[in-house]
Amino acid sequence: MVQLPPAPARSFASDNVAGAHPAVIEAIAGANHGHAAPYGEDPWTAECEARFRDLFGADVTTLLTFNGTGANVLALASLLGPAEAVICTDWAHITVDETGGPERFLGAKLIDLPAPDAKLTPEHIRSQAHLLGSPHHVQPGVVSITQSTELGTLYSVDEVTALCETAHDLGMTVHMDGARLANAVASLGGGVETLRALTVAAGVDVVTFGGTKNGLLAGEAVVYLRPELARRAPFLRKQVNQLASKMRFVAAQFLALLEDELWLALAAHANAMCRLLHEQVAGIPGIELDGPPVVNSLFPVLPAELIEPLRAWSFFWDWDVSRHQVRWMTAWDTRPEDVLAFAAGVRTACEATASKN
Amino acid sequence: MVQLPPAPARSFASDNVAGAHPAVIEAIAGANHGHAAPYGEDPWTAECEARFRDLFGADVTTLLTFNGTGANVLALASLLGPAEAVICTDWAHITVDETGGPERFLGAKLIDLPAPDAKLTPEHIRSQAHLLGSPHHVQPGVVSITQSTELGTLYSVDEVTALCETAHDLGMTVHMDGARLANAVASLGGGVETLRALTVAAGVDVVTFGGTKNGLLAGEAVVYLRPELARRAPFLRKQVNQLASKMRFVAAQFLALLEDELWLALAAHANAMCRLLHEQVAGIPGIELDGPPVVNSLFPVLPAELIEPLRAWSFFWDWDVSRHQVRWMTAWDTRPEDVLAFAAGVRTACEATASKN
Amino acid sequence: MVQLPPAPARSFASDNVAGAHPAVIEAIAGANHGHAAPYGEDPWTAECEARFRDLFGADVTTLLTFNGTGANVLALASLLGPAEAVICTDWAHITVDETGGPERFLGAKLIDLPAPDAKLTPEHIRSQAHLLGSPHHVQPGVVSITQSTELGTLYSVDEVTALCETAHDLGMTVHMDGARLANAVASLGGGVETLRALTVAAGVDVVTFGGTKNGLLAGEAVVYLRPELARRAPFLRKQVNQLASKMRFVAAQFLALLEDELWLALAAHANAMCRLLHEQVAGIPGIELDGPPVVNSLFPVLPAELIEPLRAWSFFWDWDVSRHQVRWMTAWDTRPEDVLAFAAGVRTACEATASKN
Amino acid sequence: MVQLPPAPARSFASDNVAGAHPAVIEAIAGANHGHAAPYGEDPWTAECEARFRDLFGADVTTLLTFNGTGANVLALASLLGPAEAVICTDWAHITVDETGGPERFLGAKLIDLPAPDAKLTPEHIRSQAHLLGSPHHVQPGVVSITQSTELGTLYSVDEVTALCETAHDLGMTVHMDGARLANAVASLGGGVETLRALTVAAGVDVVTFGGTKNGLLAGEAVVYLRPELARRAPFLRKQVNQLASKMRFVAAQFLALLEDELWLALAAHANAMCRLLHEQVAGIPGIELDGPPVVNSLFPVLPAELIEPLRAWSFFWDWDVSRHQVRWMTAWDTRPEDVLAFAAGVRTACEATASKN
Repeated sequence: MVQLPPAPARSFASDNVAGAHPAVIEAIAGANHGHAAPYGEDPWTAECEARFRDLFGADVTTLLTFNGTGANVLALASLLGPAEAVICTDWAHITVDETGGPERFLGAKLIDLPAPDAKLTPEHIRSQAHLLGSPHHVQPGVVSITQSTELGTLYSVDEVTALCETAHDLGMTVHMDGARLANAVASLGGGVETLRALTVAAGVDVVTFGGTKNGLLAGEAVVYLRPELARRAPFLRKQVNQLASKMRFVAAQFLALLEDELWLALAAHANAMCRLLHEQVAGIPGIELDGPPVVNSLFPVLPAELIEPLRAWSFFWDWDVSRHQVRWMTAWDTRPEDVLAFAAGVRTACEATASKN
Repeated sequence: MVQLPPAPARSFASDNVAGAHPAVIEAIAGANHGHAAPYGEDPWTAECEARFRDLFGADVTTLLTFNGTGANVLALASLLGPAEAVICTDWAHITVDETGGPERFLGAKLIDLPAPDAKLTPEHIRSQAHLLGSPHHVQPGVVSITQSTELGTLYSVDEVTALCETAHDLGMTVHMDGARLANAVASLGGGVETLRALTVAAGVDVVTFGGTKNGLLAGEAVVYLRPELARRAPFLRKQVNQLASKMRFVAAQFLALLEDELWLALAAHANAMCRLLHEQVAGIPGIELDGPPVVNSLFPVLPAELIEPLRAWSFFWDWDVSRHQVRWMTAWDTRPEDVLAFAAGVRTACEATASKN
Repeated sequence: MVQLPPAPARSFASDNVAGAHPAVIEAIAGANHGHAAPYGEDPWTAECEARFRDLFGADVTTLLTFNGTGANVLALASLLGPAEAVICTDWAHITVDETGGPERFLGAKLIDLPAPDAKLTPEHIRSQAHLLGSPHHVQPGVVSITQSTELGTLYSVDEVTALCETAHDLGMTVHMDGARLANAVASLGGGVETLRALTVAAGVDVVTFGGTKNGLLAGEAVVYLRPELARRAPFLRKQVNQLASKMRFVAAQFLALLEDELWLALAAHANAMCRLLHEQVAGIPGIELDGPPVVNSLFPVLPAELIEPLRAWSFFWDWDVSRHQVRWMTAWDTRPEDVLAFAAGVRTACEATASKN
Repeated sequence: MVQLPPAPARSFASDNVAGAHPAVIEAIAGANHGHAAPYGEDPWTAECEARFRDLFGADVTTLLTFNGTGANVLALASLLGPAEAVICTDWAHITVDETGGPERFLGAKLIDLPAPDAKLTPEHIRSQAHLLGSPHHVQPGVVSITQSTELGTLYSVDEVTALCETAHDLGMTVHMDGARLANAVASLGGGVETLRALTVAAGVDVVTFGGTKNGLLAGEAVVYLRPELARRAPFLRKQVNQLASKMRFVAAQFLALLEDELWLALAAHANAMCRLLHEQVAGIPGIELDGPPVVNSLFPVLPAELIEPLRAWSFFWDWDVSRHQVRWMTAWDTRPEDVLAFAAGVRTACEATASKN
């Protein structure tokens, strides 16, 4: 292997290898004075709930949780009725990456339908409608979509609206896994109006609004856009082990993230860094790439023999081993110099290999 | 109501109304530099695991979690076999205060036996032995004890040892809910040797080692004293929504807590403040009190008409409404002046009432 | 041990050691001609549903099941909402004798309250009302009573009515485990009007109407007295493994049992045989007995040394080993000569022992 | 529509629309004398367990259940470890036709892989091996195959052996859903040796041996080929609501079925009637058919306009509505004259339609 230039200070492994934004740490420290009522009865949490109502421009009910799996399970537990199942794609985080936690806690089937771009369509939903009413089959009750998706793709406002209409017509509700919702909003126009169009106006019932991948230390928000769906949610949050004892510290993080649209700025930055990375690596010999990314991930196919040396130099994950496809992801803290350093190393390795062959 | 003196700066509501110890916040901030592998593959977590091995003086396996309910459910899920049940007292946190989360996730019965002092005895365990082998009854598989207990009582080393022997003789394992284990250790002699005597040497199988109530922002540790019991634990932790994405921030908190025996110092301080509180309120007319506390909680019976005014002045929880019993609890950050101010207010109220009657 | 007279042809072990009534076997054979739609779409099942509407004098929805545990779990699954729990006595079959199946399938806590006579009171229910609304505690949602109870006691119409009122006032529903409901009806007046008074008129929401212990081969009915509660029941029945493939054979059994009030006659007979047994053994030296039985079970205390020899002669079960208490139970097929033979053996044994001491 | 000839006395809807074999009804009546210990402690059950040991030629442990869903769930519950999942095809009864009961009771994911012929291959299993060891993913622990399959196809002895080897090499166990195992054995050579080759010798861990679809009133057997896997099974059977109170009546049915290889004769007959049906309808204009059936089901594609009239004349189920494909199935009681009458009607309808077009 050729000698590679210095590795970037920050890797492209995932957006959760980044730490917390300084404002988040400051907010935690700032909340650490005196006594406060536990379990969300504190003023930070009350303020946070108000801020989410402002953000969504609606009378939403917000419950904070520790992590994304917990947020998803809480949302689904709030929506599912007896003998009901969840429709999702076969790329959905809930079915692929949560170790069966949803099935175990919910006692429900996840109907995970093939979707090469990780996006559900109204046809997917309608394809399951024949199950409705038969006592021999699970009853699809909830449609779960991820925005932005696990493959770095996006639903448009029209697409979300159509999904919600189809689901509601069939008596189902809609959950949006928004672990990276900020990246989607930033990509689709970048303002609070886009957030509202994608959720409240589109007809989504419950959104999980991600924090951890967007600069928090640990925190997600489950936002019930139809507050009557939250009736049992406080009990269910405790049941899924997501009721923080010292809730002020979760709420304070979100207050920092929602302040001055920091959530949008961080996501927009990560998206921009990913576009920069795409520019820098497009055209490097031996790399296969799709078009420019819409959010903060790339899924390049690399020369097989370069994957391990490059990973050893600056870590990243495999995506599809059979195709030598990997994932590169930017984060809120990725800097242009990281992108340039990473692209330089990839280029050096690829060119050396190309010249050998 | 008589005019009360100024309320204390810090209340006696619970040990989770306190914030985080400054060293914990510093540790979080200190861990917030650069990128780190997620999900516990970072150096802070590796160091934390080593520190727990040092602490227990044994080859223990430690898994960090967000909160106590999650830690308990993870521990029990690791221990329970098919069709098995958990024996505990009717005061146990898992049966009283976890909203049925254990039953829902574990799918198992909690056999909660009457225990006026919240302490399980070998006789309790043996009383359930007749269930073993009958296909009509759940099979007691795990004994769960809380140390210190929900009533502020303690198991001695001999008592824990006897419970473990009885449980093991009957083919059961032993879980210790140690949300306030530090307070117990501090009370029972105060050193690492006491911790080991109460756990490893006594024969306990899995301990949850509390952090949140002892100065952390959020964090508990599930310590498998017999590492083979941890075989499936990493998968189960994810299933119970307790795998932190940015684990370094949980690990860093524990590193601060374990440094220079801070965990012991904080717990010993809370215990001492509670003893001071007992001294200050003993003898106030109208208050019924047991003897001096062994850990950090008092359960006084108050004149009925004083409960609401005193609570409005400085918040605390009811314990047994029918008896006008309340709970006062000290924390790692309680100061002597808080105790004196609180006791002064209580005395003022009680004496005014006594003189009226 | 003295020589005992010949043992009875039929034992007093339980009402499920009896076989099926001949009319039930005939009904099964009679239904065994030609093809019939499966899963309850057959004419026998339709007829059976109509007969249950006639029996209860109301527009009830009835779902047939294989066994009593399945019927109870189906009923409770139909009633329980998210994070809800079941209130029952500590003698309840669902908590003592169903191997944790309810907890596992329902994912819910059974709050089993001490009740020396196995009867729940309005006070029991009200004692749990403080849990309502707190996210830290399970929410009592269903009250489950057994009629007649596991201890052979009975609820009066007034008692059931009061329980239902209390439960409904607190937002809970009421399940009646009627595995031996026929014995209760026969004892409390003996007619269909009594059945209706105890259930529909009293305000019960769902009843399981027992068949197996009253002359069927295998079959129980879950009767939804408020049909809207049955909305999800057909799906749940399949989920709990209780949807019979060849349902006609369960329905045919019930048609035989409901014909000409056979269910009442069989239960009344079992009750009468138990009263006869009480008459015959009352006054035998060394036996401690309560007053005459109201249904079909006795719980005598025997001389300790006689239990094993008598059991070897004609089998019966222990009840409370610590008190040398056993259970004797009559069935639909018990004959007077069985009672006389059994009582004669007991008398012989007891008198021989008494004369020795 | 043309006038159709008389409909057959027995339909081709399914093998569970047939009643019970007369010998089964006789066996039930024969077991209905006197008292017998409940819950399987009776002599019929003991004899039945011995007969299953004879049948499999091995020290198997057999637990009887009411129905097939219950049997499958019991088998899987006995095999699954914590955080484990089941690999099956997307046609598997457990994933398609059991209303999510497995997910609810087991709390486990069913990984249902696309298999156009409803048969799993070693490649299917190996394709999931990458999940093993990662705490983010369920751990495949059990492979479930159906023999004969839901599509009327068969695994050869070599195929089952290869699946078992692959599963065991990866640390997984193998469950065979044998609701129609008798049809498979009859087709693959027809003797007890074939049964043993397909199960014990092939390395299967647990088989459910179907009864209901092969002439029983209601009854399935879960046969543990490695008895140590049955250690917790008696408790789990009660938990899944499958412990019959009057077990003698389930055991007696199986004794009749196992007597003189009745199980094989009935299945072979159903298979033969299906081959006859294929002969009779092959070549009818407008019908698309695969080759001769190996077990007892056909999946013809019919002229669209004939489906409803033919169904109204003699009921059968749709299979793939989009392709106008239906399912015709023979049973243990199908007679040649039923086949001829059914084929005659189909021919009349098709020819009339063909002549019109």
